Amino acid sequence: MKIGICAPARPIDRIVEAKLSALAALSFPDVELVFHPQCYESDGHFAGSDERRGAAFLEFANDAAFDAIWFARGGYGSNRLLHSVIPQLGPAARHKTYLGYSDNGFLLAALYARRIGRPVHGPMPSEVNRADAGACVSRSLAWLTRGERSVLEPGLAGRPAVAFNIAILDALVGTPWLPDLTDHVLMLEEVSEPMYRIDRMLFTIAHATQLKGIAGVKLGMIKDVIENDPPWKGTAEDMIIRWCGEMGVPYLGRAVIGHDANNRLVPFGIA
Amino acid sequence: MKIGICAPARPIDRIVEAKLSALAALSFPDVELVFHPQCYESDGHFAGSDERRGAAFLEFANDAAFDAIWFARGGYGSNRLLHSVIPQLGPAARHKTYLGYSDNGFLLAALYARRIGRPVHGPMPSEVNRADAGACVSRSLAWLTRGERSVLEPGLAGRPAVAFNIAILDALVGTPWLPDLTDHVLMLEEVSEPMYRIDRMLFTIAHATQLKGIAGVKLGMIKDVIENDPPWKGTAEDMIIRWCGEMGVPYLGRAVIGHDANNRLVPFGIA
Repeated sequence: MKIGICAPARPIDRIVEAKLSALAALSFPDVELVFHPQCYESDGHFAGSDERRGAAFLEFANDAAFDAIWFARGGYGSNRLLHSVIPQLGPAARHKTYLGYSDNGFLLAALYARRIGRPVHGPMPSEVNRADAGACVSRSLAWLTRGERSVLEPGLAGRPAVAFNIAILDALVGTPWLPDLTDHVLMLEEVSEPMYRIDRMLFTIAHATQLKGIAGVKLGMIKDVIENDPPWKGTAEDMIIRWCGEMGVPYLGRAVIGHDANNRLVPFGIA
Repeated sequence: MKIGICAPARPIDRIVEAKLSALAALSFPDVELVFHPQCYESDGHFAGSDERRGAAFLEFANDAAFDAIWFARGGYGSNRLLHSVIPQLGPAARHKTYLGYSDNGFLLAALYARRIGRPVHGPMPSEVNRADAGACVSRSLAWLTRGERSVLEPGLAGRPAVAFNIAILDALVGTPWLPDLTDHVLMLEEVSEPMYRIDRMLFTIAHATQLKGIAGVKLGMIKDVIENDPPWKGTAEDMIIRWCGEMGVPYLGRAVIGHDANNRLVPFGIA
């Protein structure tokens, strides 16, 4: 099992490689982690220019020696690669798992829309720095290496599902990079936004023509909410129930996904 | 000339009515300004509940005695009215001008999409509080009362045009509330966002299937940019040129619109 790690958005520090390699050597000895040098590069906001990040992703995705691509970190920037990178994915890219979340939801969506590989929403290498004794990154490694189902979101009851950060799904709505999610359970999570912005993004999702056929919505974790001025009335769950009503789809309860050490994995489609 | 003022998003203070009425009495004596009491109400984030804001808008829009509806202030909330309000607009609503911008772009878009009345992007009553001796609100009154063309954005050269706040257009993309903008010049402005978010919203606009036929893009004012961490490389103009390239439409230069005392009016369609 050979896993290639690249950074389509923001860079990571070398300490991530040291910690994750040590953890893998101990708990997942059959895994070989290959960090692309691009992970540590920096160009303004990004882990290298668009060309550099795109080339690193393509190099690993199109190499048949890798079983999986693991996105090092989120932030912002993976959307800027889609236009040039997705058309260049070859046959070797079709037989891989692609794992990450947050900003990398852009890539997961585009891959799923084009039926390339197996996109999975789940913890990323940068999260080895969480104070959770490696629990969340181990969940990703357990899925990649052993297909361990205990690490999956517990509500994946045989229905096709996807999971997205709300801001990323909002940014995908109306573009050809949003996959057909007919009959899918849509799981949503958010971090560091005020309530009025979450409400505005849910307006877009609820009114999106492309999302009319979804099976229902589950609400993941809404973390580190930025104070709303004036204070917002009601909870995130009240909010999602309102928009599900206007969308005409059932609200299916909570999901254990989000920017949190408890983040569970959601393989896109049928798990 | 009777102008009805209501607040589909956030409330205004009564001082706005006093100042604006005094200004109108002096400079636009033929105008009657009617402030709906809903303008001063408050319900959490909004100027009254969705029902209350929607009812106030419908009351004035469906009243043939009003020649124009002027949106008091932006903020957030006009999107929450579209679903219930737009289908209830009757014949009297079709013969009016609707003037405002920022969050009220949701209403302007939906009205334009349904070919109801004459939506116009321009200064709002709340801006009588600007330190500009009433210049920007006077521009709106000069257009409403005398059709004065000197107050219009100077680049409206006989081509159909629209103007939007980038976040509002981004939120409309993918929904049926976004009008058909084929052959239109699209003018964009923003306020109080970090560069990476503006970039992400322009990604959505550039890749939006619904916007494929636009004639070109003009960049309005990008005000009060929130510091990007790490610093963003390049200017807002560099950014829009990049996305126009990826979108395959010409960048047509700057537009004098935005969250600023110099904000000029843009009547939707042919001015």
